[in-house]
Amino acid sequence: MKIGDYLLAELAGRGVRHLFGVPGDYSLAFLDQVLAHPEVTWVGNCNELNAGYAADGYARISGLGALSLTYGVGELSAINAVAGAYAERVPLVVLGSLPARRTLDAGRVVHHGLGDADWRRVIRAYGEVTAAQTVLTPDNAVVELTRALDIAMTERRPVYIGIPSDVPMLDLPSAAPALAEIRGLTSSPGELAAFATAAGKLAAKARRPVILLGHELARLGLTDEVQRLGLPVAVTAIGKGQLDEQAVDWIGTYLGPASGPGIREAVEESDCLLALGVVFSDTETAGFSAVLPESAMIVVRPENATVAGKPFGPVAAADALRALAQLFGTRTHSTTVTTRERAADTDKLTQDPLWTEVAAAIQPGDVVVVDQGTPSFGMLDHRLPSGVSYLAGTLWGSIGYSLPAALGAAVAAPDRRVLLLIGDGSLQLTAQELSTMARQHANITVVLVNNAGYTIERAINGPAAVYNDIAHWDHTALVRALCGPNVQVRPARTVGELRTALAAGNGLRVIEAYTDPLDVPSLLGRFVAAVGAAQH
Amino acid sequence: MKIGDYLLAELAGRGVRHLFGVPGDYSLAFLDQVLAHPEVTWVGNCNELNAGYAADGYARISGLGALSLTYGVGELSAINAVAGAYAERVPLVVLGSLPARRTLDAGRVVHHGLGDADWRRVIRAYGEVTAAQTVLTPDNAVVELTRALDIAMTERRPVYIGIPSDVPMLDLPSAAPALAEIRGLTSSPGELAAFATAAGKLAAKARRPVILLGHELARLGLTDEVQRLGLPVAVTAIGKGQLDEQAVDWIGTYLGPASGPGIREAVEESDCLLALGVVFSDTETAGFSAVLPESAMIVVRPENATVAGKPFGPVAAADALRALAQLFGTRTHSTTVTTRERAADTDKLTQDPLWTEVAAAIQPGDVVVVDQGTPSFGMLDHRLPSGVSYLAGTLWGSIGYSLPAALGAAVAAPDRRVLLLIGDGSLQLTAQELSTMARQHANITVVLVNNAGYTIERAINGPAAVYNDIAHWDHTALVRALCGPNVQVRPARTVGELRTALAAGNGLRVIEAYTDPLDVPSLLGRFVAAVGAAQH
Repeated sequence: MKIGDYLLAELAGRGVRHLFGVPGDYSLAFLDQVLAHPEVTWVGNCNELNAGYAADGYARISGLGALSLTYGVGELSAINAVAGAYAERVPLVVLGSLPARRTLDAGRVVHHGLGDADWRRVIRAYGEVTAAQTVLTPDNAVVELTRALDIAMTERRPVYIGIPSDVPMLDLPSAAPALAEIRGLTSSPGELAAFATAAGKLAAKARRPVILLGHELARLGLTDEVQRLGLPVAVTAIGKGQLDEQAVDWIGTYLGPASGPGIREAVEESDCLLALGVVFSDTETAGFSAVLPESAMIVVRPENATVAGKPFGPVAAADALRALAQLFGTRTHSTTVTTRERAADTDKLTQDPLWTEVAAAIQPGDVVVVDQGTPSFGMLDHRLPSGVSYLAGTLWGSIGYSLPAALGAAVAAPDRRVLLLIGDGSLQLTAQELSTMARQHANITVVLVNNAGYTIERAINGPAAVYNDIAHWDHTALVRALCGPNVQVRPARTVGELRTALAAGNGLRVIEAYTDPLDVPSLLGRFVAAVGAAQH
Repeated sequence: MKIGDYLLAELAGRGVRHLFGVPGDYSLAFLDQVLAHPEVTWVGNCNELNAGYAADGYARISGLGALSLTYGVGELSAINAVAGAYAERVPLVVLGSLPARRTLDAGRVVHHGLGDADWRRVIRAYGEVTAAQTVLTPDNAVVELTRALDIAMTERRPVYIGIPSDVPMLDLPSAAPALAEIRGLTSSPGELAAFATAAGKLAAKARRPVILLGHELARLGLTDEVQRLGLPVAVTAIGKGQLDEQAVDWIGTYLGPASGPGIREAVEESDCLLALGVVFSDTETAGFSAVLPESAMIVVRPENATVAGKPFGPVAAADALRALAQLFGTRTHSTTVTTRERAADTDKLTQDPLWTEVAAAIQPGDVVVVDQGTPSFGMLDHRLPSGVSYLAGTLWGSIGYSLPAALGAAVAAPDRRVLLLIGDGSLQLTAQELSTMARQHANITVVLVNNAGYTIERAINGPAAVYNDIAHWDHTALVRALCGPNVQVRPARTVGELRTALAAGNGLRVIEAYTDPLDVPSLLGRFVAAVGAAQH
């Protein structure tokens, strides 16, 4: 068995059936192995950043994503996507194709290098944004590949694997050294018991226990355990869509003073607030303006927990959730179906009805991918149907992420419909990947908000400043250019036009929804006001 | 004076009249200062990688380039362009907008961060690809800004300046500490004398002295000094266009065994080969297959020199060139005008006549920007007119570079015509910046080679492999989408059509030149053969 084939088999065994990337001369021979492999399919992207985002979207659906990049230029072009996967705990395998070992060992200066022989520069840069880095040799291939993949799966983080161009074609040593499996985090029994006791005291007298959900526990596969607690649930911005919002007592999205009616009180006045997998960043707290009941809080993170500010660790999240289940049992919940007022067909399209209509069009089983800006804030106000996968990059917040991520999700789940919600400013960063969507026959409905620029930034600073303007694009011509004449762009300037467009058809299609440059979702307006107030 | 205004004045004083980038919430207030500044104009790009390439192209014309990026996402999206500037010695100033100092100091987790409080991660990554890194405070602003800019100008490398979002609006301290000017490299007098003596011995008996030119000395502003040596000149791939090719005895481009007729002999059989500013990478040596006369070589690098393999240093390149001028005097040269055979109008367009026609269309004063692939190799065979600026990214070799770089060059030199030579594969990485060209009313003629994929890779491996195919784009619709209806795309399928298209018009325009997917310039064919032979 060749080392390249072994690598591909190990990836396939962990759910990687598609490899994203851009070819380069250092990777071509390895890509021949990919093309010949029975389980892994090559998906070429227009550029490497897009490939990284696509692999991230794929991983959020399939459990693991991978991308192949050429030395230096390819690796560094994609590093922003990998950093986002690190921040948001998405397991990615970055396969960096390096020069052949004899070239590296000889200290030769080669193209795609920094002009010197220090070929580890890029790997050190990757050290800042990945959980493990390794360079494969025939001797270490089995051990190091296993180690890196186990870390990716266990920590739910990206890892970097450097592949000298001559290595994939070599035979895997028959007597490769074995490696003890890397196990997930183990709790300290004493700490876990102490956590359970402390949490129990809070729980015993709790009359209004509430869950505030972040993204981390869903990444660890613990969604069911959270839902089975049976408690009312509010989500943070990045926690949006991380459980079945129909399967719990639903409160809504908590954003400190920017929260919708009743949500702030339910969270801040809870006498037992279970903050599960929440990273309390500026976004989650509306610029640190949230006032949380710290003495009544149980906080569960992947590797530790706190009760009323007292830390316990190491405590694995799975163990902490088991302890909480014993305290709260498995309550049943009552689902309240809220019917939202709908605008009239003839109403000019504005942001709030735009997202109400989009939310109403979401079907169980859909994959919803939202970009930062008005789409992400617009959707926070809406409860999702069951079985929806919801992909957002709220913490890393890299605009343009959603478009290639939607491609990756569509490749991972060809039987599901993908809804991509993106603004015209974000579109410009990664637009070329529309052509890969067409090439892959992806089932994606794009809702493109045309509001002539970076509206979320207009809301923050410089409503009319030229830096918030973007180059004018003709999106109909763009889609024709990248996707061919069979992909239609339907304009929507009224609520009725949007409703009709959303109802129609399958396959790749684009709805261009026009809103005013200064029009923002109500929640975004409140959020910006709360952040601004907190700064003064 | 505000610190932001001081920063902009210091940049403007060094030739930066345009700031490239993408806005973000951490940078918006600083960008207000940019908009109000009398000397610096904001040029918004579609994404940050493109902004980095544009700033690089701008710097190669103006002497210094700058770009503004928001924290994390913006910084890492552009890092590949900055690495290229490092590899190829282009001075860039990366202005990274960070969270406010109170947020950094408090160790808070914020959006665009890696999910923890370690906000120096990205700066450490930049440490691998920049010559200096600093974070501005009111106390250090004058000293650190001066230091960083001096390093950029002296070393001709990119530098990173982190700007906490609150700092630009603060007053510059009136009693800011002064800093001794950073001076360029000083030679050791003894080493310089020893170098001159050793070089003199070689020069005294030389009958066929020849210069082999790289890119480094042109970056240091030493082009005239090289030309005045009056010796016959061959250039390496990255040395192409780095002096006035009409002002010297012209040999051609040296590429080891892949060199054109007579060039290899002139270089390899020289009894005194002056390798000036050459980085002997794999590309420059056709995969290390070049056989150079090492015992007859004088090598001048920016900070040191060697004669027949014996090193001398520190020896500044300017001093070394002065010593060489005393040895060789200022010979006059004879210009041989070579008339190249032209194809017939009705001939189907193929690669060799394509580049012959493009070369013939270049006028004195043009800026020529070439992407990697068939354009870069196709142009190596052609001697350039006087006064041409030639931009290529041969060492870093990042495809897609040329398109935003052409934008940057056009912004830097609005009175000159820019010729952008790019293939359809490279175009897909950075195509969106065509819209910024239109927005900036750039005078750019794009020669877009449509040959359905990564032809240079087909020549190396997998001529029919799917990984060398690209998504099909309709370039006419693309230009309409991004540039509006007034920018024309003229197809050229015959030599005559290309000739006519090249002769016509000014302003932004696109010539789509069709060649076969497997057709390559003769020089590229020889290069691939030489590299392949060297590997076996």
